[in-house]
Amino acid sequence: MSNKPDGSPIVGILMGSDSDLEAMSSCPEVLAELGIPHEIRILSAHRTPEKTAEYARTARERGLEVLICGAGGAAHLAGVVAADTILPVIGVPMKTSTLGGQDSLLSMVQMPRGIPVATVAIGPAGAKNAGLLAAQILALSRPELAEKLCRYREKMAAEVLAKDARLQKLGVSDYQAKKNSG
Amino acid sequence: MSNKPDGSPIVGILMGSDSDLEAMSSCPEVLAELGIPHEIRILSAHRTPEKTAEYARTARERGLEVLICGAGGAAHLAGVVAADTILPVIGVPMKTSTLGGQDSLLSMVQMPRGIPVATVAIGPAGAKNAGLLAAQILALSRPELAEKLCRYREKMAAEVLAKDARLQKLGVSDYQAKKNSG
Amino acid sequence: MSNKPDGSPIVGILMGSDSDLEAMSSCPEVLAELGIPHEIRILSAHRTPEKTAEYARTARERGLEVLICGAGGAAHLAGVVAADTILPVIGVPMKTSTLGGQDSLLSMVQMPRGIPVATVAIGPAGAKNAGLLAAQILALSRPELAEKLCRYREKMAAEVLAKDARLQKLGVSDYQAKKNSG
Amino acid sequence: MSNKPDGSPIVGILMGSDSDLEAMSSCPEVLAELGIPHEIRILSAHRTPEKTAEYARTARERGLEVLICGAGGAAHLAGVVAADTILPVIGVPMKTSTLGGQDSLLSMVQMPRGIPVATVAIGPAGAKNAGLLAAQILALSRPELAEKLCRYREKMAAEVLAKDARLQKLGVSDYQAKKNSG
Amino acid sequence: MSNKPDGSPIVGILMGSDSDLEAMSSCPEVLAELGIPHEIRILSAHRTPEKTAEYARTARERGLEVLICGAGGAAHLAGVVAADTILPVIGVPMKTSTLGGQDSLLSMVQMPRGIPVATVAIGPAGAKNAGLLAAQILALSRPELAEKLCRYREKMAAEVLAKDARLQKLGVSDYQAKKNSG
Amino acid sequence: MSNKPDGSPIVGILMGSDSDLEAMSSCPEVLAELGIPHEIRILSAHRTPEKTAEYARTARERGLEVLICGAGGAAHLAGVVAADTILPVIGVPMKTSTLGGQDSLLSMVQMPRGIPVATVAIGPAGAKNAGLLAAQILALSRPELAEKLCRYREKMAAEVLAKDARLQKLGVSDYQAKKNSG
Amino acid sequence: MSNKPDGSPIVGILMGSDSDLEAMSSCPEVLAELGIPHEIRILSAHRTPEKTAEYARTARERGLEVLICGAGGAAHLAGVVAADTILPVIGVPMKTSTLGGQDSLLSMVQMPRGIPVATVAIGPAGAKNAGLLAAQILALSRPELAEKLCRYREKMAAEVLAKDARLQKLGVSDYQAKKNSG
Amino acid sequence: MSNKPDGSPIVGILMGSDSDLEAMSSCPEVLAELGIPHEIRILSAHRTPEKTAEYARTARERGLEVLICGAGGAAHLAGVVAADTILPVIGVPMKTSTLGGQDSLLSMVQMPRGIPVATVAIGPAGAKNAGLLAAQILALSRPELAEKLCRYREKMAAEVLAKDARLQKLGVSDYQAKKNSG
Repeated sequence: MSNKPDGSPIVGILMGSDSDLEAMSSCPEVLAELGIPHEIRILSAHRTPEKTAEYARTARERGLEVLICGAGGAAHLAGVVAADTILPVIGVPMKTSTLGGQDSLLSMVQMPRGIPVATVAIGPAGAKNAGLLAAQILALSRPELAEKLCRYREKMAAEVLAKDARLQKLGVSDYQAKKNSG
Repeated sequence: MSNKPDGSPIVGILMGSDSDLEAMSSCPEVLAELGIPHEIRILSAHRTPEKTAEYARTARERGLEVLICGAGGAAHLAGVVAADTILPVIGVPMKTSTLGGQDSLLSMVQMPRGIPVATVAIGPAGAKNAGLLAAQILALSRPELAEKLCRYREKMAAEVLAKDARLQKLGVSDYQAKKNSG
Repeated sequence: MSNKPDGSPIVGILMGSDSDLEAMSSCPEVLAELGIPHEIRILSAHRTPEKTAEYARTARERGLEVLICGAGGAAHLAGVVAADTILPVIGVPMKTSTLGGQDSLLSMVQMPRGIPVATVAIGPAGAKNAGLLAAQILALSRPELAEKLCRYREKMAAEVLAKDARLQKLGVSDYQAKKNSG
Repeated sequence: MSNKPDGSPIVGILMGSDSDLEAMSSCPEVLAELGIPHEIRILSAHRTPEKTAEYARTARERGLEVLICGAGGAAHLAGVVAADTILPVIGVPMKTSTLGGQDSLLSMVQMPRGIPVATVAIGPAGAKNAGLLAAQILALSRPELAEKLCRYREKMAAEVLAKDARLQKLGVSDYQAKKNSG
Repeated sequence: MSNKPDGSPIVGILMGSDSDLEAMSSCPEVLAELGIPHEIRILSAHRTPEKTAEYARTARERGLEVLICGAGGAAHLAGVVAADTILPVIGVPMKTSTLGGQDSLLSMVQMPRGIPVATVAIGPAGAKNAGLLAAQILALSRPELAEKLCRYREKMAAEVLAKDARLQKLGVSDYQAKKNSG
Repeated sequence: MSNKPDGSPIVGILMGSDSDLEAMSSCPEVLAELGIPHEIRILSAHRTPEKTAEYARTARERGLEVLICGAGGAAHLAGVVAADTILPVIGVPMKTSTLGGQDSLLSMVQMPRGIPVATVAIGPAGAKNAGLLAAQILALSRPELAEKLCRYREKMAAEVLAKDARLQKLGVSDYQAKKNSG
Repeated sequence: MSNKPDGSPIVGILMGSDSDLEAMSSCPEVLAELGIPHEIRILSAHRTPEKTAEYARTARERGLEVLICGAGGAAHLAGVVAADTILPVIGVPMKTSTLGGQDSLLSMVQMPRGIPVATVAIGPAGAKNAGLLAAQILALSRPELAEKLCRYREKMAAEVLAKDARLQKLGVSDYQAKKNSG
Repeated sequence: MSNKPDGSPIVGILMGSDSDLEAMSSCPEVLAELGIPHEIRILSAHRTPEKTAEYARTARERGLEVLICGAGGAAHLAGVVAADTILPVIGVPMKTSTLGGQDSLLSMVQMPRGIPVATVAIGPAGAKNAGLLAAQILALSRPELAEKLCRYREKMAAEVLAKDARLQKLGVSDYQAKKNSG
């Protein structure tokens, strides 16, 4: 799926600290599930500003097409990266123990005119959706990935309908009991 | 720039009400400035649900590549559209007179696992950035658009530096006076 | 109590995910306690949009009279259902681990002109009250249900007064001790 | 439409102060448009508590079926009324000059187990939707009102589509110009 | 300290549910510590509205001088009580599992012109301070209580200074170690 | 009404800045209406800390019984005053142009264990209620003031009922028209 | 006061856009009033990232001692500058038209471990205080500036006391009348 | 590093309660790591107002150069201290169990014109950064401390890069496994 013959990554996942790794883990998982080559980097907007800027500035020439940044609190990583590349940058606000991630969300989404960050939901749900959003972007020029995404959507729908059918069959109590024991 | 020979739109801008048109206007402006063919539609997630679903379901086959949805309050438009297409969907939360747009923002960005909405800033800044984000996505397969975006960034930087130089030369009082007299 | 002779459901409870089932469980409980036939469905505004729309569009003709929707985050389920039926739709905002349910609440309650959602409290308290609100609506044309609701209110009042009497008798320490050991 | 031959009101609209009258005005308007007899009362949960309780306690026997309460700040009116009747009570949170209506909203919607308030959006949009929600409830036993509501929905949809068509025809600039001069 | 010879209560502590009893417990404790006769009642603004109104209306003639109300969520208890008495009413907003008590706080403090509620901090700190505030009010006409409050303040100050001295002596590590083992 | 023969003030109204004077003005007005002698002072917790502390420490011996503090933003005035007196201190959070007064409210109400501030609503409504709360406190030992407060309540109720009667007579349109021209 | 003989600036004031100039203007004013040489620059964290980083990296060697950054929305400027210098960086959150500056505040203050930003109040009050905070820092090694600051404080206190005296003399009505006509 | 030959403290750390000691502990740790003499005091703005004012007023003459104040809720400590000294005062808002520290943050940062508090992040991250900010201020006149801070920054950057390299080598799963096993 890579533009380069060596299967080099087309999505770069960045996070400001390895404490964000667990919350971000569903992002590389969904990319892997969809067969999208990616790399994961720990780079801080504040502690390694030059390395971060260098990464952003060279991302496009190295064949990356979408960048995903997870960060919390005064979450500047996505904005700082977006300032140094014209690649689409997706921001995943991390939940914070104090304000629940409201700080991370506002620090990412309220970007000024000129430099957008495509912000998704706070925490793990956002991490997974960042991967899917990257896939939807990449699928514009990759019909086989578009096909995979259509099948992924169908699978999600089927899972909901299966749960619904199961709930009709078992009733609430048995459904919950089996789910908890499952 | 369209994939189709007839210059048909590749970006669809949707809004739930014509009261959002003014706040959204910088979005088609920036797309026009970048030469990206687009269409603007008024479609409501709640008042015209079937038309909206139909629009979303057929968007891809009609050659659209990115959808931009502006909505306010319980802003479901972007999420509802995203549910019916694998095209990337960008959400622009409208400012509300009561909660400032916090409601619009949370209604858009906190999407559940599986269906992402790429959310940008509340109000006109977000509308402009939605256009730029669409352009950044489209530029992945359009080198000439990528080139335009690079020049756009350079122009923005030059404007900032020109203002900075002007401020150094005039001082705060004269700068403000000339700016206000404008 | 059903309008149909076969005791088919007159209240439909929908939730976007089976992870909402526990928080919603007091809703079917109170409906059962009041003898109101109901059905519980898992249907997602985003993952099964067509099934959800179909459910909403056919609800009235199938004899349903009130719909209750529990959803969290960008909680579009109630609004999407309300868009496709003139039955009264009650929304129960789910608590979220990040923003406590403020996102769910605003996504439900701030509906635009034309399509109301009757929103109740966040979480289990709201789920129970959704059931009671449905009962209050249904009781308008069912005197025996109105009678049940009056008795339900009296029972609630009696429970408060019994606790009050018990607290006067035992004092704070003993009351708490017996409550905790109870 | 009234259950009583004299056309006496079946919806009671209450507000805590005549300063809420303007924001609430779209509520009686939509009820009138739908031909639903109603009354409008100024009654305060705090300044006239006995009158308010008396109103709530006697509402049902006087033939009222739905109560709508608009209040702002520590907006107790809807909850206090709901405590004294089993009729469905709809709450409309008023916008406040300090907190935008967030206080009104939380004071209404976060009702404890046992006594629901069907809360709608903050301000005029909520006032209109309260009227429509009341109509949807009343329509359960009034087929001709259900029919009116279906037509009302169709009219709303048609208006959106007409605006959409007009926008396609005129383009953004002309549309805005005519709208502003309109 | 009571105005009546039989030592009957001069402070009434009300709470809407026995689930508030633990959070409120520091309130009767501090009243007891200061020798102020008080009573504790469970009365709900919503589930026992008539009993609550009756309590408030008769409080003054029964010799009560200050009322303290603890409630959570749409916390109407203090406002409803305040509407029915000219005694000073102190409100203690309970912490809620969803919004942390922001709902309780706004529902109490944002009272409309005419009916004040003296609101204190959310949760146990507020419960204790409600007791102290009641004591400060009662002390206006009870010099011996004023004296007790002065000594209470001195004791609080002495405790802070003792901790400070201890910290200077032990250093942070030892202080923490002894505190945790203490 | 003063304890001293010379009619010296028994309520002290403090504000941190003369910019708060307009929002606070309903406070001395209602005290004057009830015949309660009072003084108004501009004293800042931050700009005149010693004068403020001195005022608080000597308030009781000078015959003051209740202190009312209006302040905005990081509104420390009420807490700082409360730290230096055992008189009841009422806090009025000022509306702020940035956060609507949420900052002022939290800075006042969230006092730590030991030093309560009786906080009322944000802005002018709170200012008026602070005056009424002070009156309710003072009325505990002044039967004639209690009598005045009862009459004040009756007058408020009568005004609401008069408006209600007027609305019934005129209807919404005429009521609004006369009110606006009034 | 500069460390360099040529009176070159020791405080650098940065803002992301000339739209922040008005809100920031009290910052250079107070620095000028205290005789502190300073420079004002327009530099954007997002539109001119390299220039901004270069400014921050060279600030210390150019003799600057304190940097003040005003920015709004996703206000990254202060954090980005702080990442590239060990000089103390003061952040002034700009008020935003949507969220009042809550976004700007959280984006500045919630910096991760390692890179502090000294954040002051939202808007013009913060801008002035940023200048004073810079002065307080600089005064640590400049006794004559410390002296000026002491006099500045005395002047502020005197102004408060003068207003207080004037209010005692004129009363509320006359004070307000003269202030408004003043 | 002290200005006095006896190594007396140049930074004073204050907290309002020993319950803040754990959250504040990273502050003295980082000061110790950088070799900056400091003292830690428990002093309450509300419970020991005179001692606190005395501490602030004498801090400068005792050789202190920076004051750091940790406090929660209606967090007045930093503002009260700042009112009584021209030394730079850094505020660390404590996390609160109810509002997550939003109350503490606003109570600190929203200081009025004239008296700044340099506010850092909520909780332990802020406590550490308060120490670093103090060091950055002190380093302006202590080249050897500036040198230490530069090395501290380099160490932080190196740690991030080492984690990044480790993650590239191990992959996500192994990295997480080894991190968790510790």
